Amino acid sequence: MTANQIWRLLAAIRERQPLVHNITNFVVMNNSANALLALGASPAMVHSSDEVEDFVALSQALVINIGTLYSEQIAASKLAAIRAKVASVPWVFDPVGAGATPYRQATAVALARLGPRVIRGNGSEILALAQQARAGQGRGVDSLHGSEAALDAARKLAKDSGAAIAITGEVDYVTDGSRVVEIHNGHPLMTRVTGLGCSATAVIGAFLAVEPDALAATAAALATFGLAGEIAAEKARGPGSLQVELLDALYALDEATLTARVRVTG
Amino acid sequence: MTANQIWRLLAAIRERQPLVHNITNFVVMNNSANALLALGASPAMVHSSDEVEDFVALSQALVINIGTLYSEQIAASKLAAIRAKVASVPWVFDPVGAGATPYRQATAVALARLGPRVIRGNGSEILALAQQARAGQGRGVDSLHGSEAALDAARKLAKDSGAAIAITGEVDYVTDGSRVVEIHNGHPLMTRVTGLGCSATAVIGAFLAVEPDALAATAAALATFGLAGEIAAEKARGPGSLQVELLDALYALDEATLTARVRVTG
Amino acid sequence: MTANQIWRLLAAIRERQPLVHNITNFVVMNNSANALLALGASPAMVHSSDEVEDFVALSQALVINIGTLYSEQIAASKLAAIRAKVASVPWVFDPVGAGATPYRQATAVALARLGPRVIRGNGSEILALAQQARAGQGRGVDSLHGSEAALDAARKLAKDSGAAIAITGEVDYVTDGSRVVEIHNGHPLMTRVTGLGCSATAVIGAFLAVEPDALAATAAALATFGLAGEIAAEKARGPGSLQVELLDALYALDEATLTARVRVTG
Repeated sequence: MTANQIWRLLAAIRERQPLVHNITNFVVMNNSANALLALGASPAMVHSSDEVEDFVALSQALVINIGTLYSEQIAASKLAAIRAKVASVPWVFDPVGAGATPYRQATAVALARLGPRVIRGNGSEILALAQQARAGQGRGVDSLHGSEAALDAARKLAKDSGAAIAITGEVDYVTDGSRVVEIHNGHPLMTRVTGLGCSATAVIGAFLAVEPDALAATAAALATFGLAGEIAAEKARGPGSLQVELLDALYALDEATLTARVRVTG
Repeated sequence: MTANQIWRLLAAIRERQPLVHNITNFVVMNNSANALLALGASPAMVHSSDEVEDFVALSQALVINIGTLYSEQIAASKLAAIRAKVASVPWVFDPVGAGATPYRQATAVALARLGPRVIRGNGSEILALAQQARAGQGRGVDSLHGSEAALDAARKLAKDSGAAIAITGEVDYVTDGSRVVEIHNGHPLMTRVTGLGCSATAVIGAFLAVEPDALAATAAALATFGLAGEIAAEKARGPGSLQVELLDALYALDEATLTARVRVTG
Repeated sequence: MTANQIWRLLAAIRERQPLVHNITNFVVMNNSANALLALGASPAMVHSSDEVEDFVALSQALVINIGTLYSEQIAASKLAAIRAKVASVPWVFDPVGAGATPYRQATAVALARLGPRVIRGNGSEILALAQQARAGQGRGVDSLHGSEAALDAARKLAKDSGAAIAITGEVDYVTDGSRVVEIHNGHPLMTRVTGLGCSATAVIGAFLAVEPDALAATAAALATFGLAGEIAAEKARGPGSLQVELLDALYALDEATLTARVRVTG
């Protein structure tokens, strides 16, 4: 994947302004909407079971995130995911906190089976999901550490689910089960702002709206978002200003800066 | 409507600090509360059917916004709107996404019939609501474009509903069915920050709390909010800093700046 | 309580990164999470009755805040509070708007009886809660004004509930019924940013996770948060930039600044 390809996808988002339907958590709704607007996409946050099926059919991509999970959200998310499949609307899943409680784990597993094109999580979340995908193997999440172990689980989860799997952390990995792409953009201060992982997932949704190859769309999204975070961190004095600068950086990102600074390998 | 009148209304808000009850969407709750606080009003976000009737009776204005619509919100909004009428508390309605889905359209139409003093939307939302008000005329929303067509629909909606209708966009229009006021404040970068339209609606609520003429209150609110956005855009480097600067500008707005820069005609 | 003790507690939070479980309102979820992250703690916002009992057992502290109260939240909050007691997880209660409506008052009173280690509110909220604790005394909330009257009520509420009671305002008071600590940090501009009181409550949760003495934890939290607000106000141009600077200040707070500037007496 070249820097020029990433730039062309970002330019396509800015030109087409795809409608990205989000069923996401209450903590990050505002940030995710602002990240999508700064990027050039059109966000909508629509959650009711009474309208998600109608709304997803109008959209170019769907984002499902279970951060502040509640029972009505599960039904709405399932309805939206099923309709997205029928309407050929690609969707990305963010299994926030998978494995933390039985309820969250069961919900994450159930949604992961409904055909997301991409699943993005941190190492623990991907390991928790992958463990389910390999039921009976008896290896607990707690016994698995480090990104190499998570990457192995991600490859298997990709094969089982058919989705591209993204593990984000100091280095981001994306795999479709065989290919693995690494993204080296980003900055440690980003971990001190709530919901930047969730915003990254929303940004993946925007890239999925313009690029059918899920691996390529995800790598491009994570590189773009990580680079904006890097640029923001150069100007920020702490996590408060980082969040402000990140939106400004996403909005201002130009071809010369992006192609010079994205660091994607594989 | 003169700049001096607008200033006197802003000064009245700062002096009286009216309690503005918001039943609004999850994306913009924080921003709307902050916009009202920066302006000088006292915001409250209270949503449960178990208490909205009691709470609206304590308030000087009510704001209803259906951005992240869900079934319990419909019941709570209806109860609050009905009690607001009984208690003579003026209320403003923001029919976010009217027309996008049948559920949203039906809800918007039902709430618009409960006596709002003001309805604020973009051109598409006002056209969707007005189409219902002219049922049987058979002109689809999609066939109507441009602000002149929306303005025509707004005049009819104003006469049918008894509310002042605000169409916001590059130019804002407010009409009571006969009079039309234009507001030329604002900045294009404001469209890249989520929920600024919703915040404008909340600010209309604060002006309604101190000015019984709905047309005047709405024009003053949109001019004040648009001017704060303009001032913010002069200092901002993108949509992230625009949002921060907008709150600072609303808070700092003084008589000399406001009277020199508001652009209201009609 | 010395400045050195406060510093040691802040250092302990940064080192241990305690998991703070929040069942809080929709307006401040983002801000509270960011305040906890900037401080050095690990926030989680988990609300469903289906998982709060499991989640609180994983946490080092629990925060319950009823700002945008709804019926499911009451059940979830009660379940979490009861499990917190069983699991010896300390919790802090923020009775937002206690006394404003019968529903809110009844909920606040019921939760206050479930064993919070700390209750933090403004004068009106503490007076409303204390009135219930002294049922039959017949003194209405409206007849009580000023911080001295609230402090008297707080002492009684502390004795009745077993919690440390914090009244925040121009001066913050914390009492366990006998001892009273005053905190003189903070800045008036903080009242123009929504949810900073709620963020202060979340920060109390983080200090409770590392300090078993509820009075000491609360005083340290309010001094730290108030000082960050003071430093932010020196740099801010209004309430928008204050919020950004506050997170940066919390993150950057060092031993020399903290020990030189916290103002705690008693």
